[in-house]
Parts: sequence; C-alpha cells; structure tokens
Amino acid sequence: MTLKDIRQARQKASQLLQKAKIVISREEKENMEMTDFGLNDFERLGLSIVVYENNDRYCAKELMLVPRQTCPEHRHPRMSEKNIGKQETFRCRWGEVYLYVIGDSTAAPKAVIPEEYKKYFTAWHEIILRPGDQYTLPPDNLHWFQAGDEGAVVSEFSSTSTDENDIFTNPNIRRVPS
Amino acid sequence: MTLKDIRQARQKASQLLQKAKIVISREEKENMEMTDFGLNDFERLGLSIVVYENNDRYCAKELMLVPRQTCPEHRHPRMSEKNIGKQETFRCRWGEVYLYVIGDSTAAPKAVIPEEYKKYFTAWHEIILRPGDQYTLPPDNLHWFQAGDEGAVVSEFSSTSTDENDIFTNPNIRRVPS
Repeated sequence: MTLKDIRQARQKASQLLQKAKIVISREEKENMEMTDFGLNDFERLGLSIVVYENNDRYCAKELMLVPRQTCPEHRHPRMSEKNIGKQETFRCRWGEVYLYVIGDSTAAPKAVIPEEYKKYFTAWHEIILRPGDQYTLPPDNLHWFQAGDEGAVVSEFSSTSTDENDIFTNPNIRRVPS
Repeated sequence: MTLKDIRQARQKASQLLQKAKIVISREEKENMEMTDFGLNDFERLGLSIVVYENNDRYCAKELMLVPRQTCPEHRHPRMSEKNIGKQETFRCRWGEVYLYVIGDSTAAPKAVIPEEYKKYFTAWHEIILRPGDQYTLPPDNLHWFQAGDEGAVVSEFSSTSTDENDIFTNPNIRRVPS
C-alpha cells in the first residue's frame, strides 16, 4: 500500500468507528494497523485494526471493514504444549459481518468472493453477525469473514494475539502491517 | 435488592448502554447482573454488568454505572502458582469514570465517598477515564472506581473472571449477584 492508500484507509476506518459511535484516542488512530495481507488488493482483501490491549494473557481489538472487505481464511495454530492456539470471540458492533467456519456448507452464502481468490476459501459454514451478536471460535479452526454492504465494526476479544503465527490458506499471503 | 429494584436497575443500565450506542441482545439484557455487593445500597455502591464472554483464557464485560455509583475497593488475588490473579483493562466508552489505584494519593480527588464508607477506601491515586481512555491494572492491586455525574459505560477486557475470589476492603461485602 502506498502512503496515500494508507491515509485513505485510515480515514475510512475512522469513519466506520464514528458511525459505530466508538471513540478512539489520537494515538490509537495514528497507530491503527491497515493490512492488505501482502496481496495489494486492500479494498477487497484487507482489514483495519485498533489494538486496545495485547498482553501475555488476553487481547482486545476493534476490527473495521469497508463494504464487502474480507479477512482471508486462516487459523491460529497450537503454539506449545500449554498454548493450544489463539481463541477469539467476534462481537459485531455496527453493520453486518458474515463469518465462515468449518462445518456444513451454507447453501446460499451471503459473502461474495472474487473468482481468482475462491480456491483459497474452504470453510463455508456461515454465521451472520449483526450488532449485539457474537461468536466464539475454538483455537486452530479455519475461519474468514466479510463485511456486508455497509461495512462493519467488530470487537475481537481473545487470548494473546501473535499475528505472525497465523496460517493462511492462500500461500501468497504475508501477514505484515502495511 | 427487591425484584422492583432489580427491574429498575436493569432499566437504568440499559439506558446507559443506549446512550453509549452499545447494542446488547435480549438474552444479555435478561441475564444482566446487578450487584449491590450485599450492602443494600445499590445506587451508591453497586454495578451492572453484561458478561460477553468468560472462558478459561479471557473475559470481556460491559460495566454500567449510574451517576456517582461506586464499585468498592477490592483486589484479584493470586490463585495458584501459574495464575497470578486476574489482570484487567478498563476502557471508558461513555461518560466519565474515576479509577483509583495504589500510588501517590491525588490531592483533590473527583470521587465523593459517603462518610460511613470512607474507611473502606484506601487507594487514592486517581486516573480519570473519558471515552477512548483506558488503563490496565496489574494483578492483585487494590482498586475501585466511581462514575461521574452522568454515569458511565466501561468495557472490561481481562484474564478469566472468578468474582467469588475477589477480596474487598469492606469485610461486610458479599460478592453475589442480586
């Protein structure tokens, strides 16, 4: 992403937070993470993140997605004997988000994936989250999500976050901040 | 608390959430916890809580306080060799909250404690939290908080919550839901 892309993305994510009436500090806005997962297609495959807290016990973030933006399929693997992998709870705060997990494939899913990326999306059990809805994902389970037509703001509560360990279905993905 | 008190408290807490534009489900509203800490003085010493998630790794709650309502002084003690006690992050979402922790006493603190309870409040280092502000409290540290004149809504992100183990400065307190 170019600097201009990043500025634009930050602005859009901030507008989503404003719509959700969620206040962040100036420092949090400046440190907001915009990731395109190394695919250089941010508006389609990307995510904006404010990390409120991430310590060795728990983590809390706000995730902002522009309309139809997708966080690509991945899982949080077991890290050690004790750490069975990151566990996370997604809570929709604003907009609508379609979360996909392993299980019976949903017949007519709401998410739309561009043709060229389809082979990297294998979990098709749909969970629709609207404001006040939440879902807790067990560790090491494949998942991905897409915002609806208005975009979405999603709170993520979880165990410690170590993004660099995430395993993506698409081998071209590099999980680095832009 | 009588059933009428509880209904009234639930209604006030729901109104605070509405002001903060935070959506909860009908089930969450029905299961909302109103505690008066066994002191039967809920409007002054009490707290309303929505538990979003509490598992063996992390916990997320929304705390609602009516104007000037106080969560009394307590700490989350070490539980075992591995569990050094609950660690928590308070993030103000709406209103204003005055958090007090161990440290240099603040000269003219904003919180006002009724005379008869004062002896049970010993930590007077003040941290003022407004929307977008947050503070992470180390385990086993004494703390308490009071909402400002408009009330407050505070997100709590933490390690696993086991309220029954909390140690309160006031020995008359019983940490049971009303």
